[in-house]
Amino acid sequence: MATLGLIEYKDASPEVRAVFDDIMATRKIDWINNFWKALASDPATLRRTWESVKQIMAPGALDPLTKEIIYVAVSTTNQCTYCIASHTAAARKAGMTEAQFAELMAVVGMANETNRLASGYQVEIDERFKA
Amino acid sequence: MATLGLIEYKDASPEVRAVFDDIMATRKIDWINNFWKALASDPATLRRTWESVKQIMAPGALDPLTKEIIYVAVSTTNQCTYCIASHTAAARKAGMTEAQFAELMAVVGMANETNRLASGYQVEIDERFKA
Amino acid sequence: MATLGLIEYKDASPEVRAVFDDIMATRKIDWINNFWKALASDPATLRRTWESVKQIMAPGALDPLTKEIIYVAVSTTNQCTYCIASHTAAARKAGMTEAQFAELMAVVGMANETNRLASGYQVEIDERFKA
Amino acid sequence: MATLGLIEYKDASPEVRAVFDDIMATRKIDWINNFWKALASDPATLRRTWESVKQIMAPGALDPLTKEIIYVAVSTTNQCTYCIASHTAAARKAGMTEAQFAELMAVVGMANETNRLASGYQVEIDERFKA
Amino acid sequence: MATLGLIEYKDASPEVRAVFDDIMATRKIDWINNFWKALASDPATLRRTWESVKQIMAPGALDPLTKEIIYVAVSTTNQCTYCIASHTAAARKAGMTEAQFAELMAVVGMANETNRLASGYQVEIDERFKA
Amino acid sequence: MATLGLIEYKDASPEVRAVFDDIMATRKIDWINNFWKALASDPATLRRTWESVKQIMAPGALDPLTKEIIYVAVSTTNQCTYCIASHTAAARKAGMTEAQFAELMAVVGMANETNRLASGYQVEIDERFKA
Repeated sequence: MATLGLIEYKDASPEVRAVFDDIMATRKIDWINNFWKALASDPATLRRTWESVKQIMAPGALDPLTKEIIYVAVSTTNQCTYCIASHTAAARKAGMTEAQFAELMAVVGMANETNRLASGYQVEIDERFKA
Repeated sequence: MATLGLIEYKDASPEVRAVFDDIMATRKIDWINNFWKALASDPATLRRTWESVKQIMAPGALDPLTKEIIYVAVSTTNQCTYCIASHTAAARKAGMTEAQFAELMAVVGMANETNRLASGYQVEIDERFKA
Repeated sequence: MATLGLIEYKDASPEVRAVFDDIMATRKIDWINNFWKALASDPATLRRTWESVKQIMAPGALDPLTKEIIYVAVSTTNQCTYCIASHTAAARKAGMTEAQFAELMAVVGMANETNRLASGYQVEIDERFKA
Repeated sequence: MATLGLIEYKDASPEVRAVFDDIMATRKIDWINNFWKALASDPATLRRTWESVKQIMAPGALDPLTKEIIYVAVSTTNQCTYCIASHTAAARKAGMTEAQFAELMAVVGMANETNRLASGYQVEIDERFKA
Repeated sequence: MATLGLIEYKDASPEVRAVFDDIMATRKIDWINNFWKALASDPATLRRTWESVKQIMAPGALDPLTKEIIYVAVSTTNQCTYCIASHTAAARKAGMTEAQFAELMAVVGMANETNRLASGYQVEIDERFKA
Repeated sequence: MATLGLIEYKDASPEVRAVFDDIMATRKIDWINNFWKALASDPATLRRTWESVKQIMAPGALDPLTKEIIYVAVSTTNQCTYCIASHTAAARKAGMTEAQFAELMAVVGMANETNRLASGYQVEIDERFKA
């Protein structure tokens, strides 16, 4: 069970409901996932985290699908079970195909491999990369 | 210094030169970065790693820039100094703008934060994400 | 199931029981959690690990609650499910309030974010920090 | 060199200067460290990150020294060179003694060790910890 | 459930069956574990990953048991639940005794501890180690 | 510079010298590397860490070279620069050949890759691995 429990919409304070409402409106959905219900025990963190996520994940120089793909790459590298599940779902909702998922996994796997080869062989940074 | 040293093209065996030549031809460059020079001490790993990288990073369901962006996301999460330097350079060469880099960093940072909030609060995976 | 099984008190050797007894006496509890039952398959590691934990977690320049808070911070960063559960329980027993837990999580999340921003932007260490 | 360079106060836009001014006023210092100068290339991230750090690190249920100690624990676990240097300096400024630093390191080291023992032995979470 | 599902032998394409057959023949077993069934959704990654694993894990300068031990060490450090379970089983099949497993865990734990002490204390690399 | 400085033998207290002497006698060397000089600022941690390392790294069910190889595998996975340098040197002193080092790196790289493929594809643990 979540450490401080999950706060459902019907039991939420007006302050928490306002954030829940904004999450549902922004994402055009009618439910709240457990991550936000867990954070709702700390309304300040709930609001700050949501405001940051909303700002960062909005379309910009990178499109929303690319941003979700980056999120899955980080969550997979960190082996965060919850985050892999929730952001893989989000990436699919944003249009990720099975072929794109498979390539994403291939790149994430390879990068984790070469990261260790570079460190383990104690490779020095090329001057050209320091500019 | 790299653990087993760096092997320069002029000192390389024909087997290693063949890989170096393919790297330069595939990437349309005329130099080899230290990572490959370090792996050249183990020609089997040099060849296998290059063949995998070549296959994985080729255009497919994801475009080359997106793949380099994923590579930077993983390397940053792992804090691999060499890989951050080399793949940030590669991503720029593939067309990454400063604005895209800044958004990439913002997403990577946020994902690393929420990964820990999800785990630390012991949030259970929503049934909807298990399908 | 734990790799080498869990050794219960009633089935334990005198050597293992001595450690179990010391754990219960030191912590003023009447049960042993699975971590120690799993380590009991290797009495040398059981003893060494317990002696180290006992020495390190004793009150000193930092109080026991602060030490448990640090333990939760590390376990959350590493995403160790067992350790998050057991040390969050230990921190609460040591007096951690819900408000303190929430702030702990906020700091852990933020630190994981800025760790990646610092690395990803390849920020050089300020001279002032090197003293 | 930092990927997008470091922006000095004298070269900063009014938007960036406003954040720099707030950092210096809040921390009662007269200089800006490289982390913020690097983020200044992306004013939106600079502002959001600073506002979050300011809110999270303010005195609350946990005192500022404890918060800096948590920051060092996370940075050390992640092996973020820049962050270890900057937050160890910040913790000392907040009053951390050498004895406290030494105990912090001992707990961080031990937690990283037992995190792996718990995972490696595949220890199941005790029912008592699930409440 | 695995993101793209698990592909059973009877439902597999000839391309996937060829890899499954080689896995069973090489390992002298008559079943396929879930990892390969999951990768089978992407035949190119299935083949590349298996060919790499087959080449790397074959007897060479290091014997197969030592290689499986290294695999468990990495998986434990990364806290990859699936990999800890599967490679602990593989190491046992390769002859790992309970005493060897226990010592492996002790070294992995200790290394994770001293890794953080070295980084946290900001220890500089000795000149003698740079040769 | 190391956070609390490095304590040289000539400046060390009798308590610290006793540990330094034991390190040199056990390892049959006539110098102390920076790691121990840094820990010497906290004699309790210096002694506890050395006693643990001495006990764990002694020949047992696993030989000393295998143990150093495991240490390098963990340090590489964690990207601990100091530890990679010091334990690669230690492994070589224990007899590791260049061919063994190269295979070690190949396994470490591969394990880091498949760890992420297993997690990213959300592969469930096979029943056979749970026994």
